[in-house]
Amino acid sequence: MTAALHPQVAALAFLLGTWEGEGTGEYPTIEGFGYREQVSFCHNGKPMLAYTQQTWHAGDGRSLHAEAGYFRGFGDTRVEVVLAHPTGVVEVYAGEVFATSLRLRTSTVVGTPTAKPVEALERDIDVDGDTLRYAIRMAAVGQPLTHHLAAELHRVRPTADSPVATR
Amino acid sequence: MTAALHPQVAALAFLLGTWEGEGTGEYPTIEGFGYREQVSFCHNGKPMLAYTQQTWHAGDGRSLHAEAGYFRGFGDTRVEVVLAHPTGVVEVYAGEVFATSLRLRTSTVVGTPTAKPVEALERDIDVDGDTLRYAIRMAAVGQPLTHHLAAELHRVRPTADSPVATR
Repeated sequence: MTAALHPQVAALAFLLGTWEGEGTGEYPTIEGFGYREQVSFCHNGKPMLAYTQQTWHAGDGRSLHAEAGYFRGFGDTRVEVVLAHPTGVVEVYAGEVFATSLRLRTSTVVGTPTAKPVEALERDIDVDGDTLRYAIRMAAVGQPLTHHLAAELHRVRPTADSPVATR
Repeated sequence: MTAALHPQVAALAFLLGTWEGEGTGEYPTIEGFGYREQVSFCHNGKPMLAYTQQTWHAGDGRSLHAEAGYFRGFGDTRVEVVLAHPTGVVEVYAGEVFATSLRLRTSTVVGTPTAKPVEALERDIDVDGDTLRYAIRMAAVGQPLTHHLAAELHRVRPTADSPVATR
């Protein structure tokens, strides 16, 4: 059974599906790197999209990062996002949707005792048809808000490889 | 390619796989309910387990809750857990592993502006062979730490239906 999209997330429908592509990472405290990425957005009829992401090193293919969480819609231009990271960090974002773009900024970032200190993040997500580009700026480990990640992904399936099934 | 389990999460290996079963929910502010549940724990060679969960109403089968996050291991008895919820809440837990049991307590719970206020949670997870039982106590919406959820799940596959693949 496939649930109908909840009207509160209709404005986020342009995100749905499985996306794959490549990106680059940089930060003043690290060496730059390239990565391959897979992203999924899916829904189960509730007023949110479930989001999962994973990346692999462009060179040797080893797993790099992953993140998982939810994009909440309200039937207007508001978006709220909550994400958990294997690094022990959780992020709470507020933002807005403009046509097929999202602008997100953290209201809170907290971590476990062993997590690296992350102060704030901004995420820009722009979709043009089946192409998704994003940029992430991060304030962490004493650095001000600084460009960190950018990628271009392509929608490879209209549905998600996702943990949120419907029954 | 299947990555070897990272030694820092060897003590959490008893959680790996896909689990299904039934649970009951109650809280002073709501009517009690029964639910079906699926849980997955998987790994990708890094020192964490990726965790996803979803529940459906026992009566009418509608989607109820979902959560996603990561269990971090350190090669000793410490465990850190970060979770994101579609309700707009993120939870940061610290805890310990004792043989095949986990005792977790939140250090921080934060939410989006529209999320219901959750103050604290405790989670007990106990695995006996292929049976997993958990209990969750929650302090929220003005209530003190109070029993909220309990379930008994059975391991239906040794691997996870999970977003964390390895390539």
